[in-house]
Amino acid sequence: MRIGLDAMGGDNAPVGIIDGAIEAVRERDGRIEVVLVGPERVVREYLEEHGYGDDHIEIVDAPETIGMNESPSQAIRRKKDSSIVRAMLLQKEGAVKAVVSAGSTGAAVVSSLFYLGRLNGIDRPAIALWWPTKTGTSIILDGGANADCTPRNLLQFAEMGAVYAEYFLGMKSPRVGLLSNGEESSKGNELTREAHALLAASDLDFAGNVEGGDVFEGAVDVVVTDGFTGNVMLKFSESVFGYFNWMIRKGVDSSVLARIGAAMMRPVFRGMKRKLDYAEYGGMPLLGVNGVTIIGHGGSSARAAKNAILAAERFVESGINEHIRARTEETGE
Amino acid sequence: MRIGLDAMGGDNAPVGIIDGAIEAVRERDGRIEVVLVGPERVVREYLEEHGYGDDHIEIVDAPETIGMNESPSQAIRRKKDSSIVRAMLLQKEGAVKAVVSAGSTGAAVVSSLFYLGRLNGIDRPAIALWWPTKTGTSIILDGGANADCTPRNLLQFAEMGAVYAEYFLGMKSPRVGLLSNGEESSKGNELTREAHALLAASDLDFAGNVEGGDVFEGAVDVVVTDGFTGNVMLKFSESVFGYFNWMIRKGVDSSVLARIGAAMMRPVFRGMKRKLDYAEYGGMPLLGVNGVTIIGHGGSSARAAKNAILAAERFVESGINEHIRARTEETGE
Repeated sequence: MRIGLDAMGGDNAPVGIIDGAIEAVRERDGRIEVVLVGPERVVREYLEEHGYGDDHIEIVDAPETIGMNESPSQAIRRKKDSSIVRAMLLQKEGAVKAVVSAGSTGAAVVSSLFYLGRLNGIDRPAIALWWPTKTGTSIILDGGANADCTPRNLLQFAEMGAVYAEYFLGMKSPRVGLLSNGEESSKGNELTREAHALLAASDLDFAGNVEGGDVFEGAVDVVVTDGFTGNVMLKFSESVFGYFNWMIRKGVDSSVLARIGAAMMRPVFRGMKRKLDYAEYGGMPLLGVNGVTIIGHGGSSARAAKNAILAAERFVESGINEHIRARTEETGE
Repeated sequence: MRIGLDAMGGDNAPVGIIDGAIEAVRERDGRIEVVLVGPERVVREYLEEHGYGDDHIEIVDAPETIGMNESPSQAIRRKKDSSIVRAMLLQKEGAVKAVVSAGSTGAAVVSSLFYLGRLNGIDRPAIALWWPTKTGTSIILDGGANADCTPRNLLQFAEMGAVYAEYFLGMKSPRVGLLSNGEESSKGNELTREAHALLAASDLDFAGNVEGGDVFEGAVDVVVTDGFTGNVMLKFSESVFGYFNWMIRKGVDSSVLARIGAAMMRPVFRGMKRKLDYAEYGGMPLLGVNGVTIIGHGGSSARAAKNAILAAERFVESGINEHIRARTEETGE
């Protein structure tokens, strides 16, 4: 399987991204090929410096880069030679089965919509986040593709999230919750109150409203929310470990005993960090596009890039899009 | 100063609430009187059992209670003998200067609006949350009074939050940020993009958009958001310490060394818990009503109830409402 990789996406690009590609093709040992899309000279020099030949890695030249602060829709239209646009074109032509990018999320979303289009029956795609919980992993969507959503969008997110949870994560009839500011169906804003009615009428296993405090409990398998709230939660959550770390350091600074205790607990803290580390999860799929787009974290390390590539391979193999199509046809959306 | 206390509000009512009242009047030693509003017999028996006389504590009978799951607007209309309605009436008549309730937040908000009304120039009141950060404390509002907001609401929240930060927390010209899904002014949903323009045109010290990850950093003093997002963040944040605790316990269970380390670190963990504990902060003011309403946490302990009473006293003394009035008149809102 050939997978396109935006070599210029993310804070550690291109070095961390290329390292991730090398690790991925080595690990999959011939079963995948990675097409690095980026400035050819830069990418080729880096590969050669690191003694890596052409085995299972190709380069497609894309001299332009889209910055994190550019307007995605303008940049996609103007920069046809950017790595993300070239990568999406490769997928459109069938030269790769999936695209992985840790660059501008907006650019990845807009270029996916523009070059791949949407799945039938889906109005807006959504970013599915993996969320560690006390009972395992939940999926939260939308993680930031749509700042403004309609109730119908949320219903479709729920359906896509349920399919993803079932066929990618292997959960049998996943339970779906709607993120709100109270458990009762009367609670919520206009958007969620209307979405609640749609979800209750669907054939999803709908658990009703869940609150912010229910997420880490693993109360449901799929948490549905608009992309604004989902993105605020994601970024807040990512900062939490840093805040705890800071509090522990401050506390430990004032006590030798605590410092020794912290050293003895180091393996526990490492395990916690690992559980919360996006690099472990690799990449977040953009569900609902007629193709495969995996969005890496902007701070993607080589390991995160590798895991995102492997997630893309698994996504293609698990046939999520066919299952989403089947589900939305069945429910007449 | 006389302060009304909803004796039946919260999971630990009336016991924890009455204990908090006793602690508060003892600590303030004659400078405050607490009017316990609740079923007279129950309250009096408890006070007598605990050997507490009438010193600085009065009882006003209110046989009815509003449950957490009742519709606030219906309950306020129907249950005129409920503790929250009676307490608000006392404030309206001038018999108390403030009301503290750890009961249904919705009932406290609706009864405040109904019996106290709004300050001139304020369309909707907002709950101001104290938020611990790396640099001290930030204020986030709205914490849940309004699930749906207009851009103008957010501007008014910002103005009230800035006044509260200045006159209650002593921050000189507090910096205000708008919670969004990206730093650039083009990011956000419809609501926040319009609010951004209003805030930028105001004479507030507006720092622009802040993301979920900026909150614990203490990037700004006042974080403005709608009550839906604010409430989701609050409840999520409250669950974070529990999740960390759970991860540490799990890690410690598998290693004797780590268990000893955890024991040595106990004072540090206690300090962290204290920093994150709502009981320390006592109560959240409902800003924008023509009176003083302090909303306690539903799980309020005696200490939280005591701190909420002291916060009510300080709120009255700091003249926040006069400052909000002065500010909104000045800016022509």
